Amino acid sequence: MGTKINFRVRYQETDKMGIVHHSVYYIWFEAGRTEWMRELGLTYRECETKGWLLPLVESGAKYISPAYYDDLIEIETELKDVEGAGFYFNYRVVNLETAKLLATGFTKHVCIDEERRINRAATKYLKELLNK
Amino acid sequence: MGTKINFRVRYQETDKMGIVHHSVYYIWFEAGRTEWMRELGLTYRECETKGWLLPLVESGAKYISPAYYDDLIEIETELKDVEGAGFYFNYRVVNLETAKLLATGFTKHVCIDEERRINRAATKYLKELLNK
Amino acid sequence: MGTKINFRVRYQETDKMGIVHHSVYYIWFEAGRTEWMRELGLTYRECETKGWLLPLVESGAKYISPAYYDDLIEIETELKDVEGAGFYFNYRVVNLETAKLLATGFTKHVCIDEERRINRAATKYLKELLNK
Amino acid sequence: MGTKINFRVRYQETDKMGIVHHSVYYIWFEAGRTEWMRELGLTYRECETKGWLLPLVESGAKYISPAYYDDLIEIETELKDVEGAGFYFNYRVVNLETAKLLATGFTKHVCIDEERRINRAATKYLKELLNK
Repeated sequence: MGTKINFRVRYQETDKMGIVHHSVYYIWFEAGRTEWMRELGLTYRECETKGWLLPLVESGAKYISPAYYDDLIEIETELKDVEGAGFYFNYRVVNLETAKLLATGFTKHVCIDEERRINRAATKYLKELLNK
Repeated sequence: MGTKINFRVRYQETDKMGIVHHSVYYIWFEAGRTEWMRELGLTYRECETKGWLLPLVESGAKYISPAYYDDLIEIETELKDVEGAGFYFNYRVVNLETAKLLATGFTKHVCIDEERRINRAATKYLKELLNK
Repeated sequence: MGTKINFRVRYQETDKMGIVHHSVYYIWFEAGRTEWMRELGLTYRECETKGWLLPLVESGAKYISPAYYDDLIEIETELKDVEGAGFYFNYRVVNLETAKLLATGFTKHVCIDEERRINRAATKYLKELLNK
Repeated sequence: MGTKINFRVRYQETDKMGIVHHSVYYIWFEAGRTEWMRELGLTYRECETKGWLLPLVESGAKYISPAYYDDLIEIETELKDVEGAGFYFNYRVVNLETAKLLATGFTKHVCIDEERRINRAATKYLKELLNK
């Protein structure tokens, strides 16, 4: 149901254990979020141009099965919940060739302005956009 | 109480929001863990030489206040819990110059062997080492 | 003439100057090389399975115009030269939407075995494959 | 003769070849440059506050011997040359425990303003500072 992107694992994303480093999944989640916003009709690049920022206040991931160099990976991103000023996203990382679920994760964001204050107008606008 | 390390934020660790990217905190946690193990008397490098691996099965972080380029950062690492084959670590990220808490986080690991099976002997050894 | 791949710039790849960090281009070159080898008919993953490694002995890049978050990037990779045990690759980084050349670069590799000795048999095999 | 910093190799900095990824050396060079500027008496953070930016226009490295996880690394940074608007830095990467030279590298920078034009006033100021 969520927005899907896919790409191959880069060599640099692996570590000496021979698998993708756990920190890389958060970078992949972010790439998924970028496409999710593009599908919504408002790119994150445009948000930032308006001075709307969506920094993370929380992140988490569960690692189920390792990803390896050159694996074809799919990230599925969906907005889970909007609660007050908080936006919650969920992610699923799948090996496209084996259909195996590799990891799940979430991020929580708040919408702020360039002075790092909660941006109520932008939060309201985003909520209305989501309800369409 | 935990093991402490400190270092300066690298320029590459920032993103276009002008702050440290959220994925970087997990890399810092890992650097903290490395020193924690050295203090325990068994470096992670030695563990790997024995074929004992400690991959993550879960990770999480809460971002309280941003870290900026060239900030002097302290990571405090402590083992929170050992439960069955799972080792839980907690982390605190502090700006050393302002004493401000920037983030907290945790990681959960299991001890496996090179064939990716739970390594019971190593788990037992590590638990005994911890109890000393 | 070379092998081409394209992808969007990830947010994490930017730094506080608002542009892609210069170290990231080397990661992109590597992604280009992976596809170049796949087109050759021998993936780098397969090479490593045989115990053939192609570490870098030299790298370089010229940065002509910045890349920004969410830009659509194309990497063109070509084998420039094979000289003794050395393989030289050239890269061009282009913004696909504007056709602007953003950077050029090169890497030099040697083919070694797992004991880090020059792998003459593999070097010979790769040269024959290239001549086809 | 140059400015020296040292630190331990992070696990995330390694790749599946078991050694530090070649792109990481450029991140280390940058950390070296940060300390070099601090010693000069003008931190790069202060430069940016003034709107003086020093982006790279060129970079290069030669990899002599691999760096491994947990190695104690020293980076030596020196300004090699100032030519017109260009600042050239040289770097040496040494394993502090074995004194082995692992890599050498260089970066070339130009001083620009926030509109990405050559910043002549800042270039002049930096040259005067260097001559002291």
